Amino acid sequence: MGYRYEIRLGGSGGQGIILMGIVLAEAIGIHEGKSVAQTQSYGPEARGGSSKSEVVISDEEIDYPKAMKPDLLLAMNQKSCDDFYPDLKPDGMLIVDSTFVRQSPTSKAFQIPFTRIAREKLKREMVANIVALGALTQLTPLVSPKAMEAAVLGRVPKGTETLNRDALKAGIRAAKRAMKEWKEVKTDDLDAVSVGG
Amino acid sequence: MGYRYEIRLGGSGGQGIILMGIVLAEAIGIHEGKSVAQTQSYGPEARGGSSKSEVVISDEEIDYPKAMKPDLLLAMNQKSCDDFYPDLKPDGMLIVDSTFVRQSPTSKAFQIPFTRIAREKLKREMVANIVALGALTQLTPLVSPKAMEAAVLGRVPKGTETLNRDALKAGIRAAKRAMKEWKEVKTDDLDAVSVGG
Repeated sequence: MGYRYEIRLGGSGGQGIILMGIVLAEAIGIHEGKSVAQTQSYGPEARGGSSKSEVVISDEEIDYPKAMKPDLLLAMNQKSCDDFYPDLKPDGMLIVDSTFVRQSPTSKAFQIPFTRIAREKLKREMVANIVALGALTQLTPLVSPKAMEAAVLGRVPKGTETLNRDALKAGIRAAKRAMKEWKEVKTDDLDAVSVGG
Repeated sequence: MGYRYEIRLGGSGGQGIILMGIVLAEAIGIHEGKSVAQTQSYGPEARGGSSKSEVVISDEEIDYPKAMKPDLLLAMNQKSCDDFYPDLKPDGMLIVDSTFVRQSPTSKAFQIPFTRIAREKLKREMVANIVALGALTQLTPLVSPKAMEAAVLGRVPKGTETLNRDALKAGIRAAKRAMKEWKEVKTDDLDAVSVGG
């Protein structure tokens, strides 16, 4: 079996979770030369307003496109964090929007207030998903900032390019800060201390 | 095993195939009370500019979300028609955009010029995908016009609601005409005659 990396994105309806999945898949799949499958599921469980989007990356053709044990979980609200954290691989990466995720199930999560950043720095709460994509670009080696920017600009409405580029940059900056804090905590070996909360 | 219905949408990059898949999945999954999975795959084969989007509908939880033998193939260009027709179930439904699909592999296809309708009647070629969704709404019992309209309006940019509603209606009308022609041909038992070409 070849290389396989699974990402799950979760949040509430209206947070732009599905667009995130598509942009992420396009950034990785089209620009970076890997095989990528992107899936969303709708069903009885989705009717509560939850939204879930998955991206699977491989160096081979992807036969099974659903995430079984995600390597990376991005949770944009508390419910998706609670629902999906148990599926995460033991050494998997958890990124949460700390605007809405008040209780992180692990102190090792990257806790970044994507929605607050979008609201206060970009003056448009709706770009919180693009801020999160910026952070994801910084926190994983899966996709370059250049490929992500191209993918974002290929999917957002005309006239919003500058706003979305700024959102991406704000997310990258916030993730750099979170990484710095995370490393400092790790160095101090204070595992029980919550990071960036 | 329960009920399972598979749809594949294919076309070239820029024809809005992925948006079609998402809108279709949302129309069926959220508004009609079934389980729906929606997938796109990117890989070496996608880099030629082809775009493929799949929707799988079931009355049970969907474990395998990819289409194996589609019940319905919508081909927006010749290449996707040629590539995907061999996978279609023997009694499956083929719908093609006859603006670009000049050679249909079967006379039983619904051949409707979605892009020409978008260009000439709506004056915006980019809504060809919404015209096609209108036709699909008419040609299959999977989704009601009302649910489809709600799903379309939930995904298109603000300010384009009227255009997209008109595109949907134009697609429904075109499909009604195609069904009428198809029935007439069937009645005449002229299987060898191409329909609506």
